Amino acid sequence: MMTTIDRLCAAIRPVANEAAQAAQRHLDELTKPPRSLGRLEELAVRLVALRGAVPAVDRPVIFTFAADHGVAAEGVSAYPQSVTAQMVENFLAGGAAINVLARQAGARLVVADFGVASPLGARPALLVRRRGPGTANMAVGPAMSRTDAIAAIEDGAALAEEALDGADSADLIGIGEMGIANTTAASAITAVLTATDPGVVTGPGTGLDAHGIGRKADVIRRALDVNRPDAADPIDVLAKVGGFEIAGLTGVVLAAAARRVPVALDGFISGAAALVAARLAPDARDALFASHRSAEPGHAIVLADLGLQPYLELSMRLGEGTGAALFVHLARAAARVYSEMATFKSAGVDGPRV
Amino acid sequence: MMTTIDRLCAAIRPVANEAAQAAQRHLDELTKPPRSLGRLEELAVRLVALRGAVPAVDRPVIFTFAADHGVAAEGVSAYPQSVTAQMVENFLAGGAAINVLARQAGARLVVADFGVASPLGARPALLVRRRGPGTANMAVGPAMSRTDAIAAIEDGAALAEEALDGADSADLIGIGEMGIANTTAASAITAVLTATDPGVVTGPGTGLDAHGIGRKADVIRRALDVNRPDAADPIDVLAKVGGFEIAGLTGVVLAAAARRVPVALDGFISGAAALVAARLAPDARDALFASHRSAEPGHAIVLADLGLQPYLELSMRLGEGTGAALFVHLARAAARVYSEMATFKSAGVDGPRV
Repeated sequence: MMTTIDRLCAAIRPVANEAAQAAQRHLDELTKPPRSLGRLEELAVRLVALRGAVPAVDRPVIFTFAADHGVAAEGVSAYPQSVTAQMVENFLAGGAAINVLARQAGARLVVADFGVASPLGARPALLVRRRGPGTANMAVGPAMSRTDAIAAIEDGAALAEEALDGADSADLIGIGEMGIANTTAASAITAVLTATDPGVVTGPGTGLDAHGIGRKADVIRRALDVNRPDAADPIDVLAKVGGFEIAGLTGVVLAAAARRVPVALDGFISGAAALVAARLAPDARDALFASHRSAEPGHAIVLADLGLQPYLELSMRLGEGTGAALFVHLARAAARVYSEMATFKSAGVDGPRV
Repeated sequence: MMTTIDRLCAAIRPVANEAAQAAQRHLDELTKPPRSLGRLEELAVRLVALRGAVPAVDRPVIFTFAADHGVAAEGVSAYPQSVTAQMVENFLAGGAAINVLARQAGARLVVADFGVASPLGARPALLVRRRGPGTANMAVGPAMSRTDAIAAIEDGAALAEEALDGADSADLIGIGEMGIANTTAASAITAVLTATDPGVVTGPGTGLDAHGIGRKADVIRRALDVNRPDAADPIDVLAKVGGFEIAGLTGVVLAAAARRVPVALDGFISGAAALVAARLAPDARDALFASHRSAEPGHAIVLADLGLQPYLELSMRLGEGTGAALFVHLARAAARVYSEMATFKSAGVDGPRV
């Protein structure tokens, strides 16, 4: 029987080189020196080639998934676990950074509870896809069962498909997250999937000092030692040292890539979710856009593995989808330049001297 | 008698450190780990401290000044001089990159002819502040008289003051330009004012090859040799090796800085205009924001001299104000984060563990 994940992975195909070349030829006819818009042109080319059409960024949707992490018990975060639920309330009240930046970008924000420790009351603005009150502590055993990891991926994919279908279909998807201790999970996933020492991948998260970072790396080493995740089996890695919200975002990436809709990654944690997706379906990378490079050291390792160069370098490290929201403006600029600029011919502008 | 330039320079005062510290304290109370929005926070702090108030970016105005350069006769540009006037027509028709990006940013675009070689017909959308059909060839004598340099600065300042006064007053000003061969003028200005060898400052502009860049650097060396601009007298430098549109932008910077309105620089040429302004009034730097780092090598030298770190690194090299237009989104994001986010207290979110 073909699973949802198999179906999505089978639908993910690489972008055609010819489409990218045709897009660059169009850009070279516009009234500017060739390539003078730099990475904005490269971004436009990638959007056109992915979509197979003149791109638009009219209906962006940002998914911010929240969940708690049992490994928080090891003291790996500067903040108490209570903050995850409190920040979800803040998202619902519109007072968090992602609310402000999504509003500015004209992006719809979808907030989902994938397993916050203290259940939040059901509300229309909160989607509930809980797989439990947070993961188990990866330092003493698997964070979740393989069944739960698959179910969380499928839940994320289903949420993305809802946003991608219908009249009001999303034309760009951003991913972000909230979950105290989830840089520990992202670091563990990255260490395994990129075969990198935890000491290199691990960073301050929300604000650990050097001593705290050392302890956090030790916790990750213990988790890898106890669980022995299989680097060749991305779902095993996700189950043993991942998180519910990370699994959900992996599902979003797979569903969007299957429909050739661009996915704006946020920082390190959403990057780790995309890394899992790219191990399941390598061609998913053609749909991924690195909105920014986070200050978290593991992020550069994830982006290098995915072959992505970030568009913004603002030393941000907040998560929630904030970098993805800022990236919407750049993607829209690239799309509009491609569609709206005059050509040398139409504007009667002379080309280079011969 | 006090000149306009003297008056503006006298009005330009440094930003108070206390204002910046108070702004950072407010940001640290918002629901995010301290400093986790990275350079967006630094940008918000600078905007608040400059304005002395909660910042807004509701009415940005971008000034795109055009003029021709006699030094084009030396073959220093990949494009013929006719392109300057043709591109101004393109600006007026709405088909250039700056039109697209200003529209997207909700910025009003002000296009002015400071001395295009072939006069453009007068039209409501085109402001005419011509000082002649382009500058003279700096390789054989001064580009313009000192009187013209001062008048062009004053014209630029007056245009900025019009935009800054009245009910619909600009709350952020972007500067950009169009002028075939104007990277040669910007390179010459930068070489003199930063005491840098022309070979280091000079780049490809709109698309010269290595041989062309070498020839362009030689032309600049000749211009410096013939004119002997006085590095201690910024107006002398502007007159001898500058350009009409560059002088106009220097005036815009002075007028905006005098009223403590942020100025978003575009690339290398507008950077050179700001460098002249900062030599006339060093505290003008507190009003300057480096929107992006251009691919043109001289730009990094200008930004280092001004002590500015760019917000975007997209390898753009188009000019027109395109980088400034993209920066509007970041400035607006910084301003909105500052104004709209909830505090830990108001949202009931716990702070760091002790």
